[in-house]
Amino acid sequence: MNYASFYSEYFPFWDQLSEEDKTYLCNHSTTVYFDKEQAVHNNNECSGLFIVKNGRLRLYMLSDEGKEITLYRLSAGDICMLSASCVLQSITFDVYVDAEEPSECYMIEGCAFNTLSEKIPAVKIYALETAVSRFSDVMWVMQQIMFMSMDKRLAIFLLDESVSIGNPMITLTHEQIARHLGTAREVVSRLLKHFASDGILEVSRKGIVILDSKKLRSIAS
Amino acid sequence: MNYASFYSEYFPFWDQLSEEDKTYLCNHSTTVYFDKEQAVHNNNECSGLFIVKNGRLRLYMLSDEGKEITLYRLSAGDICMLSASCVLQSITFDVYVDAEEPSECYMIEGCAFNTLSEKIPAVKIYALETAVSRFSDVMWVMQQIMFMSMDKRLAIFLLDESVSIGNPMITLTHEQIARHLGTAREVVSRLLKHFASDGILEVSRKGIVILDSKKLRSIAS
Repeated sequence: MNYASFYSEYFPFWDQLSEEDKTYLCNHSTTVYFDKEQAVHNNNECSGLFIVKNGRLRLYMLSDEGKEITLYRLSAGDICMLSASCVLQSITFDVYVDAEEPSECYMIEGCAFNTLSEKIPAVKIYALETAVSRFSDVMWVMQQIMFMSMDKRLAIFLLDESVSIGNPMITLTHEQIARHLGTAREVVSRLLKHFASDGILEVSRKGIVILDSKKLRSIAS
Repeated sequence: MNYASFYSEYFPFWDQLSEEDKTYLCNHSTTVYFDKEQAVHNNNECSGLFIVKNGRLRLYMLSDEGKEITLYRLSAGDICMLSASCVLQSITFDVYVDAEEPSECYMIEGCAFNTLSEKIPAVKIYALETAVSRFSDVMWVMQQIMFMSMDKRLAIFLLDESVSIGNPMITLTHEQIARHLGTAREVVSRLLKHFASDGILEVSRKGIVILDSKKLRSIAS
């Protein structure tokens, strides 16, 4: 794999690296494949940075009792920085990352990236800015949890999911949706039934089909 | 006020500034005073950076319906970076900052700080690292909200508050505590009554006195 040609387009700091540093970063890169639902990163150790080439990763928090809350998803072109805890030492909370779909990623070893970031300010700034921009995503989730009713949160989730997969048919189970929203399966099933009775969607064994996205958007907004 | 002598101790990047830059930063600094409960920052405009000299600031989110959730507090020596949105452009969420006590702060104009941060990487790294370390505080709040029962959250809040004010007597009203935790006053009153009946604390008109901090810690942990 020619990482250099990809990184030269991908990293805004690439031109500021010496030839030696470029080679160093490429030599500490590998291509990794994850099956659907495989764990990518599962505690606060440093698993390295992941750039998603294909597929989709999900970053979430996990309670001692196994309760989950999805913070955000990473699609092709996104970089997972929070899994590289040795780069971001001020991040002291645990996050978990799973592959939601079969995924291909470029993985850069955390300590190699960290070595460069300590040497070259532009690399450090890139890492921190990436983390800070995810801070905003997480605050949005927090606002939803704190301030929004569950029907509104479910409507937003279904619309986002439908846009993300490019299909009005959503094949996630009620259990999976409940985990994303940090609620019980029964709550999701009850709300979906309610939406179905309003003609907004259809629930079948195959999945959930959005019939009236305009109405769903009005609940979401 | 001699800002330079304070900043030379406070900012890790101070030695990397030219004399001209140092003067520039000091010339864009002022000392501001806030009354108890006065708003310090109240939307996503750039209010500048605040370094707390005395008193205490509270940073919180606010819903359209007026529901609040406290993200963290800033005491003497802490810096409020999220109020300087022109420095942290990737922060896209609204936060509100109030003075919890009469407070004295040094205020640095956001655009002046931003000018330096664009010129000197060490300044930018400082700003971003400060924001990222607050990310961890916010995640801790989120974990509490999502994964902890309210009695545990209340116990943690009372212990933190008692340590913060250096007194086992907490004079906040049930309403104020409820706002911190993003819940209803009734819930707080009921839990406090429950703690009181277990001999953990005493609730009177004057406030809440922690009697058995060991027991309270066991609920919190």
